[in-house]
Amino acid sequence: MKCLIIAAGKGSRLRQRGDSKPLVPILGIPLIERVIRDAMEAGADEFYVVIGYQGERVRLFLERLAERLAIRITPLVNDDWENDNGLSVLKAREHLREPFLLLMADHLFEPSVVRSLTTLTLTEDEIALVVDSNTCNPLVDMGDVTRVKMEDGKIHDIGKGLADFNGFDTGVFLCSPGIFKALEQTKGPGDSSLSAAVRILAAKGHAKAIPTSGFWIDVDDPAAFQKAEQALLRRLRDKPNDGPVARYLNRPLSVRISRYLVHRDVTPNQISLFSFLCSLLAAGLFMLDGYITLLLGGVLAQFGSIIDGCDGEVARLKYQSSDFGGWFDAVLDRYADAFLLFGLTWHLLAEQTNGWILFVGFMAVIGSFMLSYTADKYDNLMRERIRAGGKAGLRIGRDVRVFLIFLGAAANMVLPVLVLIAVVMNVETLRRVKMALDG
Amino acid sequence: MKCLIIAAGKGSRLRQRGDSKPLVPILGIPLIERVIRDAMEAGADEFYVVIGYQGERVRLFLERLAERLAIRITPLVNDDWENDNGLSVLKAREHLREPFLLLMADHLFEPSVVRSLTTLTLTEDEIALVVDSNTCNPLVDMGDVTRVKMEDGKIHDIGKGLADFNGFDTGVFLCSPGIFKALEQTKGPGDSSLSAAVRILAAKGHAKAIPTSGFWIDVDDPAAFQKAEQALLRRLRDKPNDGPVARYLNRPLSVRISRYLVHRDVTPNQISLFSFLCSLLAAGLFMLDGYITLLLGGVLAQFGSIIDGCDGEVARLKYQSSDFGGWFDAVLDRYADAFLLFGLTWHLLAEQTNGWILFVGFMAVIGSFMLSYTADKYDNLMRERIRAGGKAGLRIGRDVRVFLIFLGAAANMVLPVLVLIAVVMNVETLRRVKMALDG
Repeated sequence: MKCLIIAAGKGSRLRQRGDSKPLVPILGIPLIERVIRDAMEAGADEFYVVIGYQGERVRLFLERLAERLAIRITPLVNDDWENDNGLSVLKAREHLREPFLLLMADHLFEPSVVRSLTTLTLTEDEIALVVDSNTCNPLVDMGDVTRVKMEDGKIHDIGKGLADFNGFDTGVFLCSPGIFKALEQTKGPGDSSLSAAVRILAAKGHAKAIPTSGFWIDVDDPAAFQKAEQALLRRLRDKPNDGPVARYLNRPLSVRISRYLVHRDVTPNQISLFSFLCSLLAAGLFMLDGYITLLLGGVLAQFGSIIDGCDGEVARLKYQSSDFGGWFDAVLDRYADAFLLFGLTWHLLAEQTNGWILFVGFMAVIGSFMLSYTADKYDNLMRERIRAGGKAGLRIGRDVRVFLIFLGAAANMVLPVLVLIAVVMNVETLRRVKMALDG
Repeated sequence: MKCLIIAAGKGSRLRQRGDSKPLVPILGIPLIERVIRDAMEAGADEFYVVIGYQGERVRLFLERLAERLAIRITPLVNDDWENDNGLSVLKAREHLREPFLLLMADHLFEPSVVRSLTTLTLTEDEIALVVDSNTCNPLVDMGDVTRVKMEDGKIHDIGKGLADFNGFDTGVFLCSPGIFKALEQTKGPGDSSLSAAVRILAAKGHAKAIPTSGFWIDVDDPAAFQKAEQALLRRLRDKPNDGPVARYLNRPLSVRISRYLVHRDVTPNQISLFSFLCSLLAAGLFMLDGYITLLLGGVLAQFGSIIDGCDGEVARLKYQSSDFGGWFDAVLDRYADAFLLFGLTWHLLAEQTNGWILFVGFMAVIGSFMLSYTADKYDNLMRERIRAGGKAGLRIGRDVRVFLIFLGAAANMVLPVLVLIAVVMNVETLRRVKMALDG
C-alpha cells in the first residue's frame, strides 16, 4: 500500500529544537522516521513525502532512511509550503491513482490506528479519516486540534472552530484519488486546506469516519512534544507478560534509564550483556564470605534485573526489536539466574557442608530453568485455550525470582529463600504439567 | 473430502488371524482403522464403507470408531460380496456426486500417498490412480499385484496378467462419479472388477496415473502382514532429529520394545513416566557409595533413555501423538537429566568436598538445560535459514548426554565425564548464540 506523508511545513512552534520539524528527534528517532516505521508496521510499503521548508535536509535524510530500511521513498517538492497544506497533498496527484494512506509527518500514532484503515474498501471519490472519539483525550491540545462531527460512520462537519463535535481529526487518512478533485475545487484565494477538501467530500457523503481510541498525538509545540515523549515511555510499561515485581518496581525504574539510553549509542544486545555481567559479578560477590558482599551482591542482582528491562524498551523505542535479540536476552537470563543461585548455594556450603543445602541449591536451579523452559511451550499451548475463554496460569518470572534473591541476601536469610525458590518454581512447573495433562 | 472404502471381501488368506479381514489388528490397530486415520491425515473427513463378509461385526466396529474420532462413517451393505469388487463400489453411487477418494480396507499407505491426489482437479468422467513406480518394491507380492502401464501421465493398460508394465496399482484412487458409469458397463456375466472399469476409462484417456515412491502395501496374506508390520516399525526409525546414539543404539532397541508395548494397555504418557522413574532410580543409585551401585545406575539410566524412545513410537503406531504428550515427555526428560547429573555430583562430593567439583556439577546441569532450552528457540529461528539453504547446526541431544553418563559410570570415570558434559553442552550453547547473533 502506498503512503503519502506531508512534511512541508515549518513547524515554527518546535523551532527551538533547532531542526526542521520532521527531523526533530523524539526519544532518539526523528518524527518522520517514526511515522514511516509505524506506517510500515501497519502495512505501508512505498512512500511519497512532500517536502518544503528546509526541503534539502529532509530529502537527504529520507534518502539515507530509504537505504537503511530498503524501501522506496519518493520526495515531492512543494515550494509553496507557506500556504495551506492542501497544496502539498496536490503535489502527489500524478503519483497516486489508487487508494493510499495519507499521514502527517508530525502526527505520531500506534500502528493499530492506521491498520483500522488498511482493510477498508473505498468507492471512487471516497475518503476515510480516523477520528479520535475520546473527547477528553489529555494528549489533545484543545486550542489547536481540528474537531470533527461524526454521524452514522460519516463525517458531518470538520474544522478548528466547530462548537458541536464528537471527535478529533487524527491526521490519519485513507484516500481515493477523489481527494485531488476536491482539493482542486478549494484552490484559489480562499481556504485550500485539507480540511476544506474533506468538507466538500463530507457534504456529498463521501467522507467516512473511523472512530479510534488508540494512541495518537499531534507534536506541534514543546508541550505536545513532552506529552508525546511521556506517552511513548508510558506505553513501554503496558506489558501484559510482566509479573508483579516488573510492573511495580522494575519497569518504572528501567523506563527512566531507557529514556537516557536511547540518546546514547548502545544497542539492545549490549544492554543485555551489561545486565548479565551485573548478575555474574553479583554471583561472584555471593561466593565471598560475610554479609557486606552478600548485601552488595543482592543489590547488584536486583540492579541487573532492572537493567534487564531496558534492552527490550530501547529496542522498541528505536525499532530494533528482533527475534534474535529476544532469544539472546533469554539465554543470558537463564545463565544469570543459574549463576546467582549457584553463588547463594556456594555461600551456604562455605559455612557448612551439608547434603541438604546442596540438594536445595540444585532444586532451585532446576526449578528456575524448568519454569522458563515450560513458559515457552506452555505459552504456545495455552494461547489457544486462553483465546477460547480459559484462564491464564500464574506467571512467576525472572522479576520475582531475582527480587527474592535480593531480599534473601539483604535480610541475610539465604537458606529460606533458596528453599522458597526451589519449592515455588518446581511446584509451579508441576502445576503447569498437570494443567496441560488435564487438557 | 468424502472417502469411499471397500471392506466387503472375505480375505480368506488372512483368516488364520481369526477375524474379519478389515478388523485384523496390525501393531494393535485394525486395518480399517489405519486406513481411515491415515486418510483423515491426508484430508478426508467423511467416510462411506462398503461392508459384506461379517458385515455386522465391521458395522459395529465402525460405529464405535466414528464416535471415538467424532467423524461420520456411513456403512453401505453389499450382500453380493463374493462377486467382483466393482459391485461394492457401485453401492455408493447414490451417495457420491462429487470427486471422492476411493481406498481399499486392506491397503495401507502413508498419508502423503493420498495427499498427492487431494490437490488434483478432475474433469467429469475422469479418475486418477496412484501408481507405484518402483517396480522392484520388495513390499509388493509380484504374483498377485495388479500391474499398470503408464504413458504420459495416463493409464494405458491395467491388469494382473500384464507383461509390459511400469508400475503397480496401489488401490488409492480419486474418482469422479464417472467411475459409476464405467462400472455399469462392466456389469453382467464378464469381469465386473474395478480394474475392468478403469480399463474402460483408460481407453477413453480418462484415467490419470499419479506416480509415487511412497510407502504402501496390500495386506493380503500372512507374508504381506509380516512385511507390513516390519515396514511400519522401520518407519519409526527414520527420525531426522535423532542423534547418533539414538539412531544406532537406542532406536533399534526401543522399536523392538514398542512392538511389544502396542499390544499392551499402556499409554505413551505412562511410558514417559516409567522412563523418568528409571532415571530417578538411577540418580538415587549414583548417590550411594561404591562402584556396583554406580554401574547399576549407569545401566538403568541408559535403559531409561532407550525406553524414552518408546513413548513417541507407541504414540505414532497407535495414532496417539499430541503436543501435550510431547511436552510432558520433554519436561520429564529435563528433570531426569538434572537428577542424573546431580546424582553424579553427589557421588563425587561424598568422596571429597571440593569447590571445583561443585562448580563442574552445576555447569553440567546448566549446560544440559541450556542446550534443551536453546534447541526449541534455535530450531524455530534456524528453520527458515535452513530452508533458505543454510546448514543445520550440530544436534547434541539427550541420547548423547545419557550415553556419556552411562559410559562414565561404567568406566568409573565420573569426574572426566561431568567435565566433558559441562564443557560440550555450554560450548555448543554459546556456539548457537554466536550463530544466531551472526545471523
